[in-house]
Formats: sequence, structure tokens, C-alpha cells
Amino acid sequence: MRLRLDLAYDGGDFHGWATQPGLRTVQGLLEPALAQLLRLEAVPVTCAGRTDTGVHARGQVVHLDVDPDVLAAAAGRGRDTPTDALLRRLNGMLPPDVRVRRVAEAAEGFDARFSALWRRYAYRIADRPGLVDPLARRHVLAWSRPLDLGAMNLAAGGLVGEHDFAAFCRRREGATTIRTLLDLAWERDEAGLAVARVRADAFCHTMVRSLVGVMLPVGEGRRPASWAADVLTARVRHPGVTVAPPHGLTLEEVAYPDADGLAARAAQSRRRRVLAGGEEEPRG
Amino acid sequence: MRLRLDLAYDGGDFHGWATQPGLRTVQGLLEPALAQLLRLEAVPVTCAGRTDTGVHARGQVVHLDVDPDVLAAAAGRGRDTPTDALLRRLNGMLPPDVRVRRVAEAAEGFDARFSALWRRYAYRIADRPGLVDPLARRHVLAWSRPLDLGAMNLAAGGLVGEHDFAAFCRRREGATTIRTLLDLAWERDEAGLAVARVRADAFCHTMVRSLVGVMLPVGEGRRPASWAADVLTARVRHPGVTVAPPHGLTLEEVAYPDADGLAARAAQSRRRRVLAGGEEEPRG
Repeated sequence: MRLRLDLAYDGGDFHGWATQPGLRTVQGLLEPALAQLLRLEAVPVTCAGRTDTGVHARGQVVHLDVDPDVLAAAAGRGRDTPTDALLRRLNGMLPPDVRVRRVAEAAEGFDARFSALWRRYAYRIADRPGLVDPLARRHVLAWSRPLDLGAMNLAAGGLVGEHDFAAFCRRREGATTIRTLLDLAWERDEAGLAVARVRADAFCHTMVRSLVGVMLPVGEGRRPASWAADVLTARVRHPGVTVAPPHGLTLEEVAYPDADGLAARAAQSRRRRVLAGGEEEPRG
Repeated sequence: MRLRLDLAYDGGDFHGWATQPGLRTVQGLLEPALAQLLRLEAVPVTCAGRTDTGVHARGQVVHLDVDPDVLAAAAGRGRDTPTDALLRRLNGMLPPDVRVRRVAEAAEGFDARFSALWRRYAYRIADRPGLVDPLARRHVLAWSRPLDLGAMNLAAGGLVGEHDFAAFCRRREGATTIRTLLDLAWERDEAGLAVARVRADAFCHTMVRSLVGVMLPVGEGRRPASWAADVLTARVRHPGVTVAPPHGLTLEEVAYPDADGLAARAAQSRRRRVLAGGEEEPRG
């Protein structure tokens, strides 16, 4: 059977999602905890969005495959269902900066990575001293100059849609940089923070933080709103675009088709991967 | 001239507001920073609510008195106003877990402590695994059983109003325990957290956390809603009432009269203090 786990983590003390020898990563904590609980040698998991060092998640999704008898044996004879027991025990083993919010049997054809319809990130900025909240300092960027969200939204308008985002991606051999940016919009939340809602089918490496980086000089009035589209069209990394700091970025949500749509999509995804001869890079 | 400072802090690494020898406190950091910036030997400040160890603040208010020439000299010759320069320099000196959000000249008659009309606290609880957010773990209590906010609001109804809150206060010689509880209500915020809004003219020591402590067993169904009023009426600390952990508690807001009301209130306050022969204890 396939399990779906929904995770949240404070990325501040993690070297990102993906296991790296000698470094503290989310995958590097989760897989050994699962192996210990399920009494298996290794439990590989697949995630929806491999977040970079310092990037947070409220809506990370992973899947793993497990024999139902192995799960039942690990769950023991308590009153909890096996998935509830796994949730409780995992949270008992993991440190407080990573929490499992839900464990459920996945629908037929579900793949945390390849079934995803889109990923949604948020980037949060406190652009006035009165907005800086020490309780949120680990996931909100403090910015010393006020930002004009109207200008930033004008800039964003030139980036939404299907484009080659090579100007905003760290290059990887064989990986496509063509992405469909579904949403890119700034608004003030109820506390007054500047929050970017960024939604795409998938993201290439450092893409969200580079998009934020191209809009910050626009928000400060140092660049015209049209500059963002100019950078995009050039298709090469621009020295004037800084990659915004990771701690303002949070993976908020990953969307999947309903049960009916999953099987069809799984078949389509497999076909597409064979044709492309490469891998999608659903990173933030 | 009198200055009003609005502060926010993450109380997790502080032994509360008030200076204590050898312990890290907010007042113990703020006063020396002010003295250094203003080049004075000591700058005593007065705060609206002396929060306990581990309690946070988003809306703490303090006042201090300073000679306008001393302030202008400390501010230097930059383009900022003297109060803006003080704000910027103070934040440059203070650690990131305490932030000054605003510095302004106070209206005539303003006293951060005695002019306050009411103090408002929030207590936040994540009562399901799916609500636990590692990014909020320093200021939200994780509770392993779901809470019935309807029952807790019934209990709260028996506590609102002017009462002797001795059952919920740590005793202090000569301090009154009669308070007017203006609001006590639980609701779900947009993320689904259980949040208590607690507003009173003033609070005695551990009062908010004891009020939360008497409602938790009601929310779990272990006590009837009427129990809270029974505890109140007994006027002695009840062994069944636990003091809820400090990290769920945040001082959110302190309200003051407008400029016209301040002078009258200051005179009234002075008269009341002389008559009472004691001190109010506006603590959380």
C-alpha cells in the first residue's frame, strides 16, 4: 500500500529537504525514523517539492510504499488506526521543527511528485519597523525600505504564464526551464505584511527566490515594472537579480487531482517522462 | 519630554519583562541600550504589562522621560527625525527577539502603566496534529486532545465581569485581586487554532494562564462548564486548576484614552493610588 504524509517544517535549521551526507535535512531525519518504526532497513520517500536550505514548508507532501502487515505490526494493538498510530509515533520521534500533520492511505495512482497539479509558495516581507514581529522572525524577511506592491504586481504581470524561466533558474544539465507560472501576486495580509502568492506547475532551482529578487528593486522604485519582463526575455541570469533570502519562503500547498483523475494522470506522466528522457525538477 | 515606545518580543528566551540580577529580561536589555544611546547613566522605563518568564508581547507599551536636547544629540544630524533615529539605532543594538516597532512623543499626561484602559492577551492552542505548525511552535501550545470551544465559552461566561479573582492569582501582600474581566472568549482563527481573547482593566500575577488552566478540563469534557464559576466563587487557589504554560500567551494590545482623556485620567489615577495606599498589578 502507498501512504501519503503531509509535513510541516521550520527550514531554518535544515540544509533543505534532500538527504546530504553529514548534513541535517528533513529527508535525512524522516527516512530513518520511518525505518525504525516500521522495522525495515530503509524506507525511501518521495516528496512534492525539494525545498532548499532554509526554506520552510506548511504543506509538504510525501509518499512511501509499505506492506500493510508491516504497518499493522508497527502500529501495535492500541485503539488508534495503523495510520493514526504511525502519525503519533513519528511525531514522538521527530524533533519539534518537523511535524507530521496527517498520514493517510493514498488513492490509486497517487505519486507525491508526479501527480502534483501545482505547487504554491508564499514569500513574506515586513517592510516597516512596525511590522517586524519577533515571533515570526524565522519565516518573514525584514526589509528596511517600504515596498510598493502595486508596482510589484505590474512587474509580476509580465512573468505569469508559460515561459522559459532560464533567467531565474540555477542551471542543471538536461533539465527544462520551461514552466507555467499560474499565479504571482503581492498583497498585504491582515497583519500588514507583504506576501507573494506564487503558484506554478513546477519550479526550477531558486526560481521563486529569483522571482522575488527581480521584483524587490521594482517595489523600491529603483527599476521600472517592465524590467522583470526584460530579464525574463533575456533567458540568461542577470547580475542585477539577487536571489532573495530563503527564510522568507514557505511551501504552502501542493494540489492533486481527485481519485478519478489520478490514474489517468499517472499513466500520462509515465509517458511524458519516457518521451522527455529527463526529469522534472519540482523545486522551490 | 515623555516618549512612548511600542515593543514586540519573543518571550521564549527571556525571564520575563522585569529586570532581575543575572537573568536575561526585556527591561534588562532595553534600559542599558537606551542609556548607551542617550549617553545617560540610567534610563528607567515604565511598562504597561510586566509579562512573566516565557510570555510574549506584540503590543507592549513603555514610556520614558528624556530631555529633548539629549534626544536630539543622540539622534545626530541625519535626515531622520529624532524619534525615528532612536527607533533605528535601538533596533540596531537590540537582539532580534526584541523589536521596537514605534517611537513617538507621548501626549500630555500619558503613563504607559496608569493611563491604560485595558490590556488584551491572546492564548493560542493547536489541539490536533494537523494544526501544529513548527513555524509557530514558540508561541502556540500543542495540545494532544481536541477542545470543545463551545463548552469553554460557556465556562468563560461565568468569569466575565468584575470579580475577586483571588482563585486565579498568585498572592501578593497588599495587592488587590479584584479585576474587571471585559472579554474572555474562544474562537478558531483562520488556520484553525483555538485562540482565547482575554481583555481586562488589569491582571494579577498568573491570572490569564490560570483562567486558561480552568477552561482546559472543561474543553476536554473532564469538568462541567459551571466548574469555572465554582472555582471563582471559592476565592482560593484550587489544586485542580493548573497554570497553562507561558509560551501560548501573548500580550497583544494595550488601549489608552485619546489625548483629551489622558490628563483627566492621570489626575484620577494619582488620587486612586494615594487612597488605596498600594500598587496596581497590571501583570499577565
